Amino acid sequence: MSIPEFSIEGLSQIVRSLERYDEATLTNAGPKTPTTRRATEQLIWRLESLLFPFEHPWEEAVEAQGTAARIELLGRIIWDLAHQIHRVDPHDCTGDPCQGLCRAFHTAIEFGKRLPDIQALLYMDADAAYQGDPAARNRSEVISTYPGFYAIMVYRLAHELFRLDVPLLPRLMTEIAHSQTGIDIHPGAQIGSSFFIDHGTGVVIGETTEVGDQVTLYQGVTLGALNFPRDVQGQIIRGQKRHPTIGDRVVIYSGATILGGNTVIGAGSVIGGNVWLTHSVPENSRVINQPQVDVKAVTHKN
Amino acid sequence: MSIPEFSIEGLSQIVRSLERYDEATLTNAGPKTPTTRRATEQLIWRLESLLFPFEHPWEEAVEAQGTAARIELLGRIIWDLAHQIHRVDPHDCTGDPCQGLCRAFHTAIEFGKRLPDIQALLYMDADAAYQGDPAARNRSEVISTYPGFYAIMVYRLAHELFRLDVPLLPRLMTEIAHSQTGIDIHPGAQIGSSFFIDHGTGVVIGETTEVGDQVTLYQGVTLGALNFPRDVQGQIIRGQKRHPTIGDRVVIYSGATILGGNTVIGAGSVIGGNVWLTHSVPENSRVINQPQVDVKAVTHKN
Amino acid sequence: MSIPEFSIEGLSQIVRSLERYDEATLTNAGPKTPTTRRATEQLIWRLESLLFPFEHPWEEAVEAQGTAARIELLGRIIWDLAHQIHRVDPHDCTGDPCQGLCRAFHTAIEFGKRLPDIQALLYMDADAAYQGDPAARNRSEVISTYPGFYAIMVYRLAHELFRLDVPLLPRLMTEIAHSQTGIDIHPGAQIGSSFFIDHGTGVVIGETTEVGDQVTLYQGVTLGALNFPRDVQGQIIRGQKRHPTIGDRVVIYSGATILGGNTVIGAGSVIGGNVWLTHSVPENSRVINQPQVDVKAVTHKN
Amino acid sequence: MSIPEFSIEGLSQIVRSLERYDEATLTNAGPKTPTTRRATEQLIWRLESLLFPFEHPWEEAVEAQGTAARIELLGRIIWDLAHQIHRVDPHDCTGDPCQGLCRAFHTAIEFGKRLPDIQALLYMDADAAYQGDPAARNRSEVISTYPGFYAIMVYRLAHELFRLDVPLLPRLMTEIAHSQTGIDIHPGAQIGSSFFIDHGTGVVIGETTEVGDQVTLYQGVTLGALNFPRDVQGQIIRGQKRHPTIGDRVVIYSGATILGGNTVIGAGSVIGGNVWLTHSVPENSRVINQPQVDVKAVTHKN
Amino acid sequence: MSIPEFSIEGLSQIVRSLERYDEATLTNAGPKTPTTRRATEQLIWRLESLLFPFEHPWEEAVEAQGTAARIELLGRIIWDLAHQIHRVDPHDCTGDPCQGLCRAFHTAIEFGKRLPDIQALLYMDADAAYQGDPAARNRSEVISTYPGFYAIMVYRLAHELFRLDVPLLPRLMTEIAHSQTGIDIHPGAQIGSSFFIDHGTGVVIGETTEVGDQVTLYQGVTLGALNFPRDVQGQIIRGQKRHPTIGDRVVIYSGATILGGNTVIGAGSVIGGNVWLTHSVPENSRVINQPQVDVKAVTHKN
Amino acid sequence: MSIPEFSIEGLSQIVRSLERYDEATLTNAGPKTPTTRRATEQLIWRLESLLFPFEHPWEEAVEAQGTAARIELLGRIIWDLAHQIHRVDPHDCTGDPCQGLCRAFHTAIEFGKRLPDIQALLYMDADAAYQGDPAARNRSEVISTYPGFYAIMVYRLAHELFRLDVPLLPRLMTEIAHSQTGIDIHPGAQIGSSFFIDHGTGVVIGETTEVGDQVTLYQGVTLGALNFPRDVQGQIIRGQKRHPTIGDRVVIYSGATILGGNTVIGAGSVIGGNVWLTHSVPENSRVINQPQVDVKAVTHKN
Repeated sequence: MSIPEFSIEGLSQIVRSLERYDEATLTNAGPKTPTTRRATEQLIWRLESLLFPFEHPWEEAVEAQGTAARIELLGRIIWDLAHQIHRVDPHDCTGDPCQGLCRAFHTAIEFGKRLPDIQALLYMDADAAYQGDPAARNRSEVISTYPGFYAIMVYRLAHELFRLDVPLLPRLMTEIAHSQTGIDIHPGAQIGSSFFIDHGTGVVIGETTEVGDQVTLYQGVTLGALNFPRDVQGQIIRGQKRHPTIGDRVVIYSGATILGGNTVIGAGSVIGGNVWLTHSVPENSRVINQPQVDVKAVTHKN
Repeated sequence: MSIPEFSIEGLSQIVRSLERYDEATLTNAGPKTPTTRRATEQLIWRLESLLFPFEHPWEEAVEAQGTAARIELLGRIIWDLAHQIHRVDPHDCTGDPCQGLCRAFHTAIEFGKRLPDIQALLYMDADAAYQGDPAARNRSEVISTYPGFYAIMVYRLAHELFRLDVPLLPRLMTEIAHSQTGIDIHPGAQIGSSFFIDHGTGVVIGETTEVGDQVTLYQGVTLGALNFPRDVQGQIIRGQKRHPTIGDRVVIYSGATILGGNTVIGAGSVIGGNVWLTHSVPENSRVINQPQVDVKAVTHKN
Repeated sequence: MSIPEFSIEGLSQIVRSLERYDEATLTNAGPKTPTTRRATEQLIWRLESLLFPFEHPWEEAVEAQGTAARIELLGRIIWDLAHQIHRVDPHDCTGDPCQGLCRAFHTAIEFGKRLPDIQALLYMDADAAYQGDPAARNRSEVISTYPGFYAIMVYRLAHELFRLDVPLLPRLMTEIAHSQTGIDIHPGAQIGSSFFIDHGTGVVIGETTEVGDQVTLYQGVTLGALNFPRDVQGQIIRGQKRHPTIGDRVVIYSGATILGGNTVIGAGSVIGGNVWLTHSVPENSRVINQPQVDVKAVTHKN
Repeated sequence: MSIPEFSIEGLSQIVRSLERYDEATLTNAGPKTPTTRRATEQLIWRLESLLFPFEHPWEEAVEAQGTAARIELLGRIIWDLAHQIHRVDPHDCTGDPCQGLCRAFHTAIEFGKRLPDIQALLYMDADAAYQGDPAARNRSEVISTYPGFYAIMVYRLAHELFRLDVPLLPRLMTEIAHSQTGIDIHPGAQIGSSFFIDHGTGVVIGETTEVGDQVTLYQGVTLGALNFPRDVQGQIIRGQKRHPTIGDRVVIYSGATILGGNTVIGAGSVIGGNVWLTHSVPENSRVINQPQVDVKAVTHKN
Repeated sequence: MSIPEFSIEGLSQIVRSLERYDEATLTNAGPKTPTTRRATEQLIWRLESLLFPFEHPWEEAVEAQGTAARIELLGRIIWDLAHQIHRVDPHDCTGDPCQGLCRAFHTAIEFGKRLPDIQALLYMDADAAYQGDPAARNRSEVISTYPGFYAIMVYRLAHELFRLDVPLLPRLMTEIAHSQTGIDIHPGAQIGSSFFIDHGTGVVIGETTEVGDQVTLYQGVTLGALNFPRDVQGQIIRGQKRHPTIGDRVVIYSGATILGGNTVIGAGSVIGGNVWLTHSVPENSRVINQPQVDVKAVTHKN
Repeated sequence: MSIPEFSIEGLSQIVRSLERYDEATLTNAGPKTPTTRRATEQLIWRLESLLFPFEHPWEEAVEAQGTAARIELLGRIIWDLAHQIHRVDPHDCTGDPCQGLCRAFHTAIEFGKRLPDIQALLYMDADAAYQGDPAARNRSEVISTYPGFYAIMVYRLAHELFRLDVPLLPRLMTEIAHSQTGIDIHPGAQIGSSFFIDHGTGVVIGETTEVGDQVTLYQGVTLGALNFPRDVQGQIIRGQKRHPTIGDRVVIYSGATILGGNTVIGAGSVIGGNVWLTHSVPENSRVINQPQVDVKAVTHKN
């Protein structure tokens, strides 16, 4: 057996090739690694246990029901969150380092103080799901099993961190929910109360989307961008309103696509399945595809 | 550094806010926590190893091939399943507690006795996938890698628990499969033999759907509800037939949407991609979208 | 309490039923188990750390940045990969067993030697995503959080193993990415450089698809087969070109479906959302659905 | 490279040799595997959290302090314990299998009901350690860090299972404590209240030892058997009193060895370090080694 | 089957009994839980990887060799250590809470700054082991496999935390080493350079022991207290010198016991195996047991 | 809050100090890391499951009882062992690298072929324990719970690797057993059949010890070196016979110490507890300490 490449020298040669990009990466992103997916999953999991200890018991058998247990868990969340914020903070390396440390803790605690409001919103979301789905048995079943509820919960938590200018972490959080549910909500989107997504696989909600109260979406709905303005060098212009605005009490059925930063769906409208919409519609509109289906009864031979 | 909120008192105040909903939750859901996602994943994983030890070896290296190993594993499954059933059983707290214990074991064992029939159905499903997909190399590859097969396996196991009136657990099981595969099959659906879902992301099959034998679905197919009847108080009426009936040997291509409890797709029909169908079609129908595509060859400038 | 079935005898009877299929499975698939999903996940995870140590740090806190650490990690990857190749190699049991061992190591090392080229392609993919998405902050964010990038990374790694005739493992790898992202790319597909998939849930790219350079896909795009030729016995004919060919610089918007082995999308074309296309189009085409939307403003009564 | 043995055939030959003993093992021990070390460790760990939630918080951050959490944990302990008892019960396979199931649950619940008494004894043990060791800061430090306390806790729990005639499991429990602490207490030993073992490595307390109240042992103390009576065939006679009886308030210093079933140490006695004792001593004895040390001051050259 | 106790009511009754001691525990120990054993193990494991990345590679395959990786790991250690210090700090709850936070970080960073000195001492310890044991192949083998070295490493790390007045954590650390090695070194002991413990099981070194440079101990050596002075109420007086002082270059063979706060072993002395010593000896002493062994050659009859 | 040291610069300074020793370590030990403790634990755990599947079931519920499962497990053990051997092989880096690869596999397979003989010896050891301990219920209890048996099992496995000239790994294996049991057997020792160690904490058996058949040891027995010959430079001379030779059927009671390479204990001898022996004794000797105990019955005042 002759495998000369499986020597330290052979392996080194491959690794040296792999290191070509390191300098560019460090120059671009600074010397600090981002937080990891695993740490982010743990953060979500702990927040879930803190907010809904009955539906998401910590580990297999123990709920964080007791007050002391919840205080302990909240303290732990804030401490680790401060660490994650500190690691991803791009301004940390310059000037006085303790500023970054201090800011990380203040941000983490501010997030902690907003948790009761987030919890209240989430209970309203769970009620909306229970009201809107005949298959739901009770609110606890929604909280413990509905992927749409999970995606909204992670979005609402990530959105608060996004508002607190925490970089990267909110996006990591919503991508974890995306991976679990197939529902892709950008943490920058602004979504009102009593939001319900049923089934949800394939839903996309872009960064500058605005959604009112009591809105319902079904699987495969896209609230996306129409096209991206570019500057004279052909570079994409970032930070503009690119995604639609959805009014209160709108229902959007499966597979519908609504695109564009100027597109406004008036309150109370119903958007039918598979509709492709790139312009605004007034309040209480009903938008449906005209059926173009061709049915033939044939003698099946094969 | 001045962070007075990160004291026991500061944390307690947040936690006390979070506890507002506890009483309502306990009143609604009873004092018992539901089973956890982790325990449910383990249940699925063990059943998989029991039914297909060659394709889903337990852990990294050891198959549950030996008869004694399988007996041990089956005994373990039944015992833990009895615990999970006992925990989610809503009638457990009233009257004689040993009734609940007894019933949990009887249900778990009854489930165990149905496993050989489920296994037989699943081999038929795997054969259908092998027959229907030119990319499949052999039946074992289907069992070990096809997400459609995985979703059907979890559905068939969950459906038996659903039939045994086990609450919550079947839904948790199919939501785990939904998360893994993007295929959302309600455990209450009734599905015939030799069922094949290819690719599968975005498939939704509702609670009261009926599917015949030898049916094939592609990704993005919805078998859903048209609208929900409400009672005079505006409350959704639960438990009615809301989803379609699909005959034997029907093929439904990607993105098709079939809605409504009265919609019946006749045996042998073929439903084309992206079709939106809310009424019945007879046997051997071919339903396709009329092409409305507009092609322009342009000089691409940018 | 009378549960006679929960005895060794009762359990044995169930297990004996479950063993009916063992002989057929062994006859079909040989005596070796395939590699497991868990081992395959670990392989992907290690490759990710090796290629992008800054964006995918190993475990929680330590990057494989040092040269020695990367050599160690590469050596480990090759060794375990050789084991996995050896286990799934269908020709291993016949003739001289050491041939299989030797071939496994040669294949694993050959794969290792191709990693720098794969890494270079992946950096081009990450740049394409950064150029194409206004929401992206920098290239590292793409590498660490974009599901489309993850799916392409796993595909490019799996594709090299596919080209090295490693059975089963490439498919397991891309199915893991499918499960994580909802993007289903067959390892046999041939995809050019600077490939970008945005959001991605529901994307399907079939085994014989060919994709040029600088192509962009959005969520829900299918590059699939039209129908499967069968031989005179009605058996599917495997191994033929069944999926489309996509030219350079093509953009395909969400929900579009392009089918058939003879379908060629000319370079520079733009395929609109939800388009259903089963025939070729020339270079620089713009293919869009004619809007058939019916909007009614109604007084919403509920 | 020529390694013909690393073939299925070569490996099979080794495995067939390894299977020679299987039949004898099954004949001797019955078809059921014993419980595993891992499951037993989990049982100890859960009991620890149930009895001392403040000192042994479950997992990293959450205590089982809340009443509901403790009820849940206790229910889980009893259920899993019933499974373990059921698996190791040697009479289970004969006759009516449900008897074994029923007995397992009754035993597990009976054990649960004795936990408050065990807890009370353990608090007395912790107080004895705090009173006896100047290095101890408070009772909680004893409970959370002292290996002697851990060994006594596991012994007291295992002893109750031993008294309930549960086979094997008590021994597995005390061997886990032995491995953690170097303190080997047989679960059959009878030990009074306020027992304190300091440091503890090397302590051995045999199966038929009796220990009074307020006894203190230091590291390396053996309470063992002198010799074993054998029957006329030369077989050891099992089940006789072979180990000593220690009175109340006895202190035994490090390395002392006390042997024999007829050896009685009178209450209030003090046994010095390294003493070797095979006969009884009256109350309030002081037993010490006469110093035989030879001291030479030498000019150290090497 | 009649098990009325296995009801929520039955379990509650047991749990309520278990809660009797909660108030006393909280009053004694304050509302904060101590750090956990698992978190402490992780701290040791990370420090080990930071100090000796070649001998204690992080996880299976990756060393923290690169400078950036070590910086990352050190930052993580300090952050988590600050959390642990903050949790066990008994003064935290009174007055200004941010003082505790600030102090925790300062203490953790001060510990980090002492690590290079600790590392230098540990390399001297490893060299002493290599010089003193003919079975050692090289210094790396000592660092990676010798239990005596492990116990000394954990002691030196814990001792610095002890000197920084961190409560509980140092003791938890040395008890973990005690459990792994059977070597019980109190973190308060003061030990010089080039210290070597061979085999080590059963070694005990008390809180106020002082040990010079180049000292060697074998298994089973006790450096302990003779007796404890008590005050007029009979309470132990804590904090006095109770353990011996060992001079430079002393060798103490297996099983020797040296007791008492006034006992001083002069530099260069050799203490023989099993010696029991409660008084001082001058420099360069040789202390041995006079042999009292009685040998009889008998005809062995069995 | 002012913590300037917790900056990248501050941490870098500490890390640069820690890196002082790296070059020396790499020069001494070569560029390869040794195998890890975790990988070695897994190796032991797998061997245990392979040899005694009924007593050491793999994971919680599944035994490797089936022939196919055992073949799979054996193949896995050999493959991973080859990797570990390859990593620790000191000759690997020079000359033709494939020699090391080849040799690693040959060594691993040779080890595999010796497993049946090791298993046979271990069954004899288990029988000896059952015959010698009245507390043992059956042979399976010995195999599953006795620490002495565990230490002997690991020693016998490690000793074969030691004989195959595998560096470091055997020592890592026996140190893991030492940590679990307090029994320290050097892998180089030569030990006959039917060996029994009862309780075992504190037992030390040195590298050049020779032990006959049917020998029994109790806890705290040392078979050690008397002193180490040094060369003219004062360096220890390595590789000489330094530890005693123990004849067949010898029994050595707790705490006995036997030292020296020329010390031979004749067959059939009995060595009493705490005996200190540095010279040979003939066959069938009985060696005991003359009792020097001083008993005083005193009125206990304190």
